[in-house]
Amino acid sequence: MADEELKKGLEGVLVAESSLSYIDGDEGRLVYRGYDIEDLARGASYEEVVYLLWHGELPTREELDEFTDAMAADRDVDADVLAVAERLADAGEEPMGALRTLVSYLSAEDPESDSEPSDLDAAARKGRRITAKIPTVLAAFDRLRRGEEPVEPHEDLGLAANFLYMLTGEEPDDLAAETFDMALTLHADHGLNASTFTSMVVASTLADLYSSVVAGVGALSGPLHGGANQDVMELFFEIDESGEDPVEYVTHAQEEREGWRVPGMGHRVYNVKDPRAKILGAKSEELAEVTGERKWFEMAAAIERYFDEEKGLTERGIAPNVDFYSGTVYYQLGIPIDMYTPIFAMSRAGGWIGHVLEYQEDNRLIRPRARYVGETGREFVPVDER
Amino acid sequence: MADEELKKGLEGVLVAESSLSYIDGDEGRLVYRGYDIEDLARGASYEEVVYLLWHGELPTREELDEFTDAMAADRDVDADVLAVAERLADAGEEPMGALRTLVSYLSAEDPESDSEPSDLDAAARKGRRITAKIPTVLAAFDRLRRGEEPVEPHEDLGLAANFLYMLTGEEPDDLAAETFDMALTLHADHGLNASTFTSMVVASTLADLYSSVVAGVGALSGPLHGGANQDVMELFFEIDESGEDPVEYVTHAQEEREGWRVPGMGHRVYNVKDPRAKILGAKSEELAEVTGERKWFEMAAAIERYFDEEKGLTERGIAPNVDFYSGTVYYQLGIPIDMYTPIFAMSRAGGWIGHVLEYQEDNRLIRPRARYVGETGREFVPVDER
Repeated sequence: MADEELKKGLEGVLVAESSLSYIDGDEGRLVYRGYDIEDLARGASYEEVVYLLWHGELPTREELDEFTDAMAADRDVDADVLAVAERLADAGEEPMGALRTLVSYLSAEDPESDSEPSDLDAAARKGRRITAKIPTVLAAFDRLRRGEEPVEPHEDLGLAANFLYMLTGEEPDDLAAETFDMALTLHADHGLNASTFTSMVVASTLADLYSSVVAGVGALSGPLHGGANQDVMELFFEIDESGEDPVEYVTHAQEEREGWRVPGMGHRVYNVKDPRAKILGAKSEELAEVTGERKWFEMAAAIERYFDEEKGLTERGIAPNVDFYSGTVYYQLGIPIDMYTPIFAMSRAGGWIGHVLEYQEDNRLIRPRARYVGETGREFVPVDER
Repeated sequence: MADEELKKGLEGVLVAESSLSYIDGDEGRLVYRGYDIEDLARGASYEEVVYLLWHGELPTREELDEFTDAMAADRDVDADVLAVAERLADAGEEPMGALRTLVSYLSAEDPESDSEPSDLDAAARKGRRITAKIPTVLAAFDRLRRGEEPVEPHEDLGLAANFLYMLTGEEPDDLAAETFDMALTLHADHGLNASTFTSMVVASTLADLYSSVVAGVGALSGPLHGGANQDVMELFFEIDESGEDPVEYVTHAQEEREGWRVPGMGHRVYNVKDPRAKILGAKSEELAEVTGERKWFEMAAAIERYFDEEKGLTERGIAPNVDFYSGTVYYQLGIPIDMYTPIFAMSRAGGWIGHVLEYQEDNRLIRPRARYVGETGREFVPVDER
């Protein structure tokens, strides 16, 4: 036993087979079910992508309409759920904590809460309800903590547009709706990242889907996983307030603060620019053109250029990842910055559920081992004799 | 890449080093931090064992009193939490689902909710609060769904006795309190089982401790992990109702129902009788002596004897595991059978928290890979052209 290799972090360990998403870190390619992420982001709605992830094939028009309509009809939540959201808002809970509690609470009201673990069709319907309701509870929580009444979902809008509508109370314009939909597609799946793997470990005990998604939200709330796009935006605010040139600010920070790094740059699985950053960067520029507020996009672009041209870091894999441009995009869409990670969860729920459904088709309990490095044979002495 | 081995279920994969618990499956030994489980179950309180798991050493009298008092003071929950428990009870939520939601909700009211991930002392205090409050929310939920008012915690009782008091409204006698405390100690840790591993994966993102424990509850709710003691008790009810001799009933069931197995017999990591089953079996007999109700203990003992003596299965590792006798013990203590798994969670929370605190000391993000077995290079066709 002593010579067995410790696989700390499980880096490189193959734990499952999957046909959901494929990442080519050298080429900078991300593929869902065989389709390039660029094609899906530009040509398919988030609902269409979720259908693809769960079923393996892109839907026909009829299948898509049926799925989209069912999901739109699933958006409503009971008054009970809003009451819990209000309590959480009043208690000052963080958005990710609130989301974790609210998704967990939703299981109490699922009409198929007693379905058998082997009933994967029921699980897929639960998944549809969870995916449909996450935007509703998130928007409601955000409004309640701002002292505003929740806005009821709008059935005629797509999932992305409806979220922006519920958040702000106003229907978004086409560019905003399309951009946000694209951002959701880009975040929907990404191999066995820590939150997806968490969902699978929970599912491997044949626990209910709600438990898997709740656990995924918990994992994503950790600063080593979600949260970098919020960090990027906070850096940009600092730069803006300092009045310095972005590149000078970054250079000084790197010189003066030990271990400091630009958030949103570099990624464990990409050795080149993240394909999602390319798409979001272009969208950020488009939003800047339309609104006339070019500051944030230009700040991001200047830092990217500096890393690439002057420091040549792109070749060493230190290039923008998805978080580098999603922050500016969300900011340009008027989304509060502490909602960026919850939005990530809203999108990634599609991937978590897809991986759970795939894994449970041929399930095996996930139970690794630890190498015991403690003592044995210690003699127990009662407390009053210690 | 194609020749890399798939480690489905991660069976045998060493993912971490740990000095919390050691299992010798051939000898039937379980050790926490160097001490045999028998010594701890008989000589230490659950609080003492939790202290040992978290700190590595048994507490002195002074340390134990301080820890126990702090934990007793942490038992109260706000009216808000009870209101959510009532909503869950009214909605007919399952106890494990309710526990998952209530622990998640508790984070909103934690006084150190904004502590830094690196502050492991704050995490340990959160762990103490979580461990202290789980019995309170579980007992309250159970009473509320029975239409009864929650009972406030009793500071002068130990954690185990106080739980029975909050559940029933009456102080338990010494034998009941001691037996239940022992059962909690026996369930507190058991290597990297699926729920403990789940908690660690979540913690590896540096997520807050609440997210880890919530995820652990979710994993334990799966029928491949928790729940077998409830199955054992349900089998015993069936046997009782049938009027048949237990051994005959089991023999017939094995002959007639394909794939049917006696729950609570055999365990992935023990090749002999589970040491925890020995202790709980003895306690079940003691309870039977005192109450005069010997039926359930004798039924279990008869089935165990049959497996051992007539079928010689003990040698093949098909011997009682912890779930085989915990069901009868809990039943003899008057605990509702769908609370058995939540009680398992109540105890195992000590282990989850201990492993999280240990792992975060030298943290590494847990992120395995999947082997991609899907297509690539599929041509995207817009929905209306499909």
